Amino acid sequence: MSAFSERLRHFQVRVEHALDARLPPAKQAPSHLHEAMRYVTLGGGKRVRASLVYAAGLAVSAQDDALDTPACAVELIHAYSLVHDDLPCMDDDDLRRGKPTCHKTYDEATALLAGDALQSLAFEILANDPALTVSATHRLRMIALLANAAGSHGMAGGQAIDLASGGKAIALAQLEDMHLRKTGALIRAAVLLGAHARENVETEKLTALENYSRAIGLAFQITDDILDVEGKAETLGKNPGMDHARGKSTYPQVLGLTEAKARAQVLLAQALESLAPLGDNGGVLAELAGFIIERRQ
Amino acid sequence: MSAFSERLRHFQVRVEHALDARLPPAKQAPSHLHEAMRYVTLGGGKRVRASLVYAAGLAVSAQDDALDTPACAVELIHAYSLVHDDLPCMDDDDLRRGKPTCHKTYDEATALLAGDALQSLAFEILANDPALTVSATHRLRMIALLANAAGSHGMAGGQAIDLASGGKAIALAQLEDMHLRKTGALIRAAVLLGAHARENVETEKLTALENYSRAIGLAFQITDDILDVEGKAETLGKNPGMDHARGKSTYPQVLGLTEAKARAQVLLAQALESLAPLGDNGGVLAELAGFIIERRQ
Repeated sequence: MSAFSERLRHFQVRVEHALDARLPPAKQAPSHLHEAMRYVTLGGGKRVRASLVYAAGLAVSAQDDALDTPACAVELIHAYSLVHDDLPCMDDDDLRRGKPTCHKTYDEATALLAGDALQSLAFEILANDPALTVSATHRLRMIALLANAAGSHGMAGGQAIDLASGGKAIALAQLEDMHLRKTGALIRAAVLLGAHARENVETEKLTALENYSRAIGLAFQITDDILDVEGKAETLGKNPGMDHARGKSTYPQVLGLTEAKARAQVLLAQALESLAPLGDNGGVLAELAGFIIERRQ
Repeated sequence: MSAFSERLRHFQVRVEHALDARLPPAKQAPSHLHEAMRYVTLGGGKRVRASLVYAAGLAVSAQDDALDTPACAVELIHAYSLVHDDLPCMDDDDLRRGKPTCHKTYDEATALLAGDALQSLAFEILANDPALTVSATHRLRMIALLANAAGSHGMAGGQAIDLASGGKAIALAQLEDMHLRKTGALIRAAVLLGAHARENVETEKLTALENYSRAIGLAFQITDDILDVEGKAETLGKNPGMDHARGKSTYPQVLGLTEAKARAQVLLAQALESLAPLGDNGGVLAELAGFIIERRQ
């Protein structure tokens, strides 16, 4: 295993433990709801967002322990968004992270409520988790950042634009705007939350991380779109070809497959270039960018 | 109009303006989503929760301006919960606050996303709204309190218990537990958020408000259950008789109508008694308790 694979595995194991400790026990009432929350959050996923929190924290020399809370918060928001996205009134998906989706294992109402409660939990832990040792002002900045990234200007807004554009031809600029919100906003929040886990980070470094996050946010979505064309269910953990079947606008559809791949490479180069002000400390973020864009799942 | 009716009207107008200023403009993209968020939040509702924030703030002599933010935050959480509750996979309701429900006017996916984005907005404004002038530590306490009240231990948890018990006979203790979560948690949060809008409130007063909120939280739900039996659609703004039709456990069903009314009166007396440590400053809260329990809608 390469040093980077080991590092990634370490992040994955670390956030899994941290999530397990912060989710309500399945035995606690209402146990049906708590089981569903644990089912969709634990035991799967690449943990790209949590890894970005940890790697950005490393890049600004934040303390490891202070990173568990924001890493969990972004993964909770991500998990809630997957549960709601998979509902019949949205994408109506049966398979997620190699398991039946939440509303298939439980029911639609439980999936709806589990998603709702995961969102609340993300903000609750950012507000009061003792592992996060930054000042109250910094915590508030993290909460505002994550709430904005999740809300109507970010992830939920991107979903709404995606829905509204379903089946219609859409220009590249619109596609980018939609994806910067839908996927990019939470990726950006993950990187910046990691950076905010330390006080007094230089503006130059924050700008570098901002630019990095924008590039990989878009590249992440392009890769997702490419995998929807080229990927296999057993590696993806979800069914490929669904975007196409739903008439969704994707990068391969708007740009062609070859151009879409070239665009992802350009964004990767931009992401790596952005990291210059961080020096050697940006090494893990650089490797993560490569992983995000070259991944097979 | 009585002094109390005027006061209530003042609270209602005040929170309507405050919400209008904090919700994204309908013209801003994604406008379809922003329209839906405004549709479900503005122009209706008794604003009981916002009124509790303002009245609790009055009771501890908090500044008026500092109360708009928590009043909006609880109304945003309440509005999101109504939108999700009304979805076909939950209560499948067509009428709310005298208007077609969100998924009827828009569609299910938009209603789902509007609810999700309203929840994010509630935490975003608590984290960064400049009108709220308390310390960062106090803001964090408010966020933790509201997040806990909305999540799996509070409102979402109460809904899950309600769903799980659908159609089954349920004992009074279970019914109370369910309603303390489903309705009580947010009512309690409203009262305590109002109190936290001022620093250094005496513990005795906070305990008084805690006891008050517990009593009216339950009484509010009992009154709701009674109105579901006795109310009319034109006053309620929603269809009566639905709980019964869905086989839901209600107070009138478990206790009988007369006993349920008597229980509401006992809780009203308890609520009024709890307010003693607040002296004259608790006057508006006392009147609100009466309003909550005697209301016809």
